[in-house]
Amino acid sequence: MQIILLVLDLLGTLAFAVSGALVAIRRRMDIFGVLVLAIVTATGGGVLRDVIMGSLPPVTFLNPLYAGVSALTGLVVFLVMYFHPKLPQRVTAFYDWTMFLFDTLGVAAFTVDGVALAVNHGYRTNFFLMVFLGVITGVGGGVMRDILADRMPDILRKHVYALASVLGAVVTSLLIRTTLPQQTAMIAGFAAIVLLRVLAARFRWDLPKVQDRREEP
Amino acid sequence: MQIILLVLDLLGTLAFAVSGALVAIRRRMDIFGVLVLAIVTATGGGVLRDVIMGSLPPVTFLNPLYAGVSALTGLVVFLVMYFHPKLPQRVTAFYDWTMFLFDTLGVAAFTVDGVALAVNHGYRTNFFLMVFLGVITGVGGGVMRDILADRMPDILRKHVYALASVLGAVVTSLLIRTTLPQQTAMIAGFAAIVLLRVLAARFRWDLPKVQDRREEP
Amino acid sequence: MQIILLVLDLLGTLAFAVSGALVAIRRRMDIFGVLVLAIVTATGGGVLRDVIMGSLPPVTFLNPLYAGVSALTGLVVFLVMYFHPKLPQRVTAFYDWTMFLFDTLGVAAFTVDGVALAVNHGYRTNFFLMVFLGVITGVGGGVMRDILADRMPDILRKHVYALASVLGAVVTSLLIRTTLPQQTAMIAGFAAIVLLRVLAARFRWDLPKVQDRREEP
Repeated sequence: MQIILLVLDLLGTLAFAVSGALVAIRRRMDIFGVLVLAIVTATGGGVLRDVIMGSLPPVTFLNPLYAGVSALTGLVVFLVMYFHPKLPQRVTAFYDWTMFLFDTLGVAAFTVDGVALAVNHGYRTNFFLMVFLGVITGVGGGVMRDILADRMPDILRKHVYALASVLGAVVTSLLIRTTLPQQTAMIAGFAAIVLLRVLAARFRWDLPKVQDRREEP
Repeated sequence: MQIILLVLDLLGTLAFAVSGALVAIRRRMDIFGVLVLAIVTATGGGVLRDVIMGSLPPVTFLNPLYAGVSALTGLVVFLVMYFHPKLPQRVTAFYDWTMFLFDTLGVAAFTVDGVALAVNHGYRTNFFLMVFLGVITGVGGGVMRDILADRMPDILRKHVYALASVLGAVVTSLLIRTTLPQQTAMIAGFAAIVLLRVLAARFRWDLPKVQDRREEP
Repeated sequence: MQIILLVLDLLGTLAFAVSGALVAIRRRMDIFGVLVLAIVTATGGGVLRDVIMGSLPPVTFLNPLYAGVSALTGLVVFLVMYFHPKLPQRVTAFYDWTMFLFDTLGVAAFTVDGVALAVNHGYRTNFFLMVFLGVITGVGGGVMRDILADRMPDILRKHVYALASVLGAVVTSLLIRTTLPQQTAMIAGFAAIVLLRVLAARFRWDLPKVQDRREEP
């Protein structure tokens, strides 16, 4: 399980670093802003997770691996966007699609990671904590990215964004308490999140809203 | 005192969940965004309180009661606004008044709660910590709500908002160190906050500002 | 070293309190909003630092010195701006220059403070943690100020802002592990940050950005 956790951590770190770098580039930040937002997005969820569990200092501060991978990823994204001359012309579609893909992978990896960490900390019997920690770990980095970029967090705007994280955390938490191998539970939860987000994007699933005629303040 | 603390916790949770749900609906979030903002607003102050005191994981993560009550409250608010056909036409006045009421109750309940928790943790002799923890617990959820909803926190805009929390924390902290029963101290602090905010709203009390002629950047 | 740490803490607190008060006044907050933003800006980095290191409650909550100095500083700034009749006419240049000066001093003081605290906690061998903690302590208060004031954090917009903090943290961390007196390492790191920011402002150093022709969403 340690190895799967490490793989998930690194996959989530890499994916969220890409999403942070893309938001920073779109907001016209310079190369250092791109690196900062890549690092915050990629490590934010894990730091929240460790603060909540009281594992201080958070592993992100003890081990340079996570910040290093994030910074390197942010640098690569910056260089690709900087030197690829054709990208700007068709960048909106590319941006939207890439953001969606990497953000989804990040949420899926970190949600499952949070659930597994709750189990590792001995909270296997507290189903609620497993799910809650999974969701916070899964969406935390993206929320920090959006707050720093001064826009309303995707988690509150994009349909089924947080819902996918909750569903994946529930699936992982339920299966991890059965006799199935833990890896199976984690892969199933990961797949559930990716699947729900892809289906929701493909079929434009919308959740109900309150209609009103007032002006936004 | 445990019972009063639980009552305050639940009252504050319920009130802040209403305020979070109302902000989410006004910002045109869908039902899941409404639930998320209700939970964050209602549990944010308590999570900050527990992180500051080092009681990790925070009680909100251990006990599903708080997130459960918040989600249920958010759902009820959503359904009322969704199915009540007359509300939209007169919703601004209704919204402003309801927000004020529930936000005030939330601040009052959590401020007193934070002070009492500092006492429970053995900080009865540190007057400053009691007041500071009370204020952070009291205003923390509302600040998180406003940051997520991408608007400047009420705490910095609305007259006497934070001032009321400070006053209530001081009243509670002073009285809780006397020979009065602790319940009396807590009820007095609660009443002081509600009273100050109602008076300030009724008589439009304003605090001084620096006048200037520059354009806002 | 305790004395230098205390001096740095107080210098950083004072400088960041001025910067928080100035942002609050520019955003037209009333006197209480000014005090709140002064306190948050001045104590935010230290609170983050203590949460990350697991020293809970943070020293800001145990010792009224920091919040007291911040509030008093905010009050003085407010009174000066309120009663000085000539300031409003020439306030933009004054504001920009004063903000830059105090913000730079705050970042420099708290960055070095964070590095020294990591050493005090026994992390002298973890170079990465020393630098990371220094940067978070150095820029944390300013980021909280900008998030509360609902604007994109300076750290992501202003050239070499965070870069100066990283450089200063690296200089301090490298020198503090040599046989030099710790004070020398701390003063050198402090000077490196101030120098880099002044040079960057004077010569308008810019870091590269990705150019594009899309509209900002």
